[in-house]
Amino acid sequence: MIRTLVASLLSIGALVTSINVSANEPIQPIKAVKPKNPDMVELGKMLFFDPRLSKSGFISCNSCHNLSMGGTDNIPTSVGHAWQQGPINAPTVLNAGMNLAQFWDGRAKDLKAQAGGPIANPGEMASTHKVAVDVLNSIPQYRAYFEKAFGSEGVNIDRVTTAIAAFEETLVTPGSRFDKWLGGDKKALNKQELDGYKLFKSAGCAGCHNGPAVGGALYQKLGVHHPYKTKSTAEGRKGVTGKDSDLNVFKVPILRNIELTYPYFHDGAVDTLEEAVKIMGKVQLDRDFNKNEIDNIVAFLKTLTGEQPDFKMPIMPPSNNNTPRPQPF
Amino acid sequence: MIRTLVASLLSIGALVTSINVSANEPIQPIKAVKPKNPDMVELGKMLFFDPRLSKSGFISCNSCHNLSMGGTDNIPTSVGHAWQQGPINAPTVLNAGMNLAQFWDGRAKDLKAQAGGPIANPGEMASTHKVAVDVLNSIPQYRAYFEKAFGSEGVNIDRVTTAIAAFEETLVTPGSRFDKWLGGDKKALNKQELDGYKLFKSAGCAGCHNGPAVGGALYQKLGVHHPYKTKSTAEGRKGVTGKDSDLNVFKVPILRNIELTYPYFHDGAVDTLEEAVKIMGKVQLDRDFNKNEIDNIVAFLKTLTGEQPDFKMPIMPPSNNNTPRPQPF
Repeated sequence: MIRTLVASLLSIGALVTSINVSANEPIQPIKAVKPKNPDMVELGKMLFFDPRLSKSGFISCNSCHNLSMGGTDNIPTSVGHAWQQGPINAPTVLNAGMNLAQFWDGRAKDLKAQAGGPIANPGEMASTHKVAVDVLNSIPQYRAYFEKAFGSEGVNIDRVTTAIAAFEETLVTPGSRFDKWLGGDKKALNKQELDGYKLFKSAGCAGCHNGPAVGGALYQKLGVHHPYKTKSTAEGRKGVTGKDSDLNVFKVPILRNIELTYPYFHDGAVDTLEEAVKIMGKVQLDRDFNKNEIDNIVAFLKTLTGEQPDFKMPIMPPSNNNTPRPQPF
Repeated sequence: MIRTLVASLLSIGALVTSINVSANEPIQPIKAVKPKNPDMVELGKMLFFDPRLSKSGFISCNSCHNLSMGGTDNIPTSVGHAWQQGPINAPTVLNAGMNLAQFWDGRAKDLKAQAGGPIANPGEMASTHKVAVDVLNSIPQYRAYFEKAFGSEGVNIDRVTTAIAAFEETLVTPGSRFDKWLGGDKKALNKQELDGYKLFKSAGCAGCHNGPAVGGALYQKLGVHHPYKTKSTAEGRKGVTGKDSDLNVFKVPILRNIELTYPYFHDGAVDTLEEAVKIMGKVQLDRDFNKNEIDNIVAFLKTLTGEQPDFKMPIMPPSNNNTPRPQPF
């Protein structure tokens, strides 16, 4: 009797596993997001692409988080106002809503808190929240879009960042080959990719790079076993908490679409996935991956590329005689 | 008998006029373009948005000819590599295929000849044709797109500029209210707009600003009656022909979408349409338009805004280990 019950429970367990491969995997598939407020998302999209949020009128959110290019700029550190060199590699905005916090050091608690930063950062968009709001508020079409999205009149920085964050929340990338495999499509990955995934788990990579975003869920010291050599002066979490123990502790980056979000690491110093995997093996796991192992892990990582943003380029409402003018030079 | 024939001809004439208002007008409606080679247009669109054609990896054609903003950058002169200040206002790419030649001084005979310029201009995208081609050639997906568009393998600068030009040829803006009026929809314009159009014709503006693009069809001296005061050192056609008589002779700019393509004139020194109309009246026509006249002409000009580009944001194929890296700093 008891044996039968145990056997039944075991077979139920087996059944559940075969239906949902991901139940026992450290990575879960990404689900598409259905926007609660499409008007808000449309407004946020327009703001994301509008360079008038910068002092110069030349830099938009999309300049450094280019949605045509994996939600980043593919250069080591970003170009800011007056061609200032940014201090750190621009993280991708794709799936960024899954991060436990924003920026490499987690100093912004969410996408909304993040969105206000670059607008007013003298080294990035170099505007002020007041000027950015004045620009938008001078444009009747923008005022109407805000009213439609928020249900009442008014343009202010809280609403600007709320709308940008609402748009960014939609920037998820389901449908990767890996997610198809997780969903039960055994042919979605080839042997090399599966071997790479097995090694990714057994070697310990998945200890930090897990969850639906394959990262973004915790902070970890860069250089657990050996120091990571860099010219960057970024201190990581120490800059937020002030604790010496948080030196070189960074948010574990998202590995979704990692093939698209080169160059790698917070200093953007590493051009290739092969080199990145080799370095991570050494400094985080004290392991010297051989060429075959590296190639397998890289092959697996490339299966994490999902469906990219799929929407029409927004058309901005024009400035008018009352709109504050940009100051590029 | 003859009288009857004349009466018949007159009534046929009246009929034709009522069907096609534009027959006797100096401005003709814009027709939508049906691409001959959609694969070529898609490739050109991708290239237009790809910042990897610049040395920095940060500047694309769309940076200064922003299709979300009337096909221009809405700043007096453009931001180039390392934040260099451009010498002249970026003309809109919208309807630019209708220009008799490209650039303010007409130094490029067509869109294809223009497209190669900024890529290799040290003050603009600051790359070289060789590097730009090497970047594209390193990317298998791009090689496949070129093969599909051109019917044979090969990436070279001639093909790059051919594809960009093919995309730009599609950037026309039909469907403006003015075009609807030309097509017989009498209610498409209000009295002020019509008064403005009548004055635009009677005062002589339409002498240069005519044809389907409302400009772009000829060169004209800026400052026919009075000198145009500017800090710009641009010489106009003189820089191309070497003739003193071509000093300050520029291509007459397109007035289609002029509400979107501020600031105005080759130096981008004028922020408002009212000021632009006032100055043009004085220096080109020796006429002091009063406020009412200016407002009417501006009201007419705003009816020239047509349907803006309507397509999905392109997704770029990623660079790989063989792709030359950008050099932003």
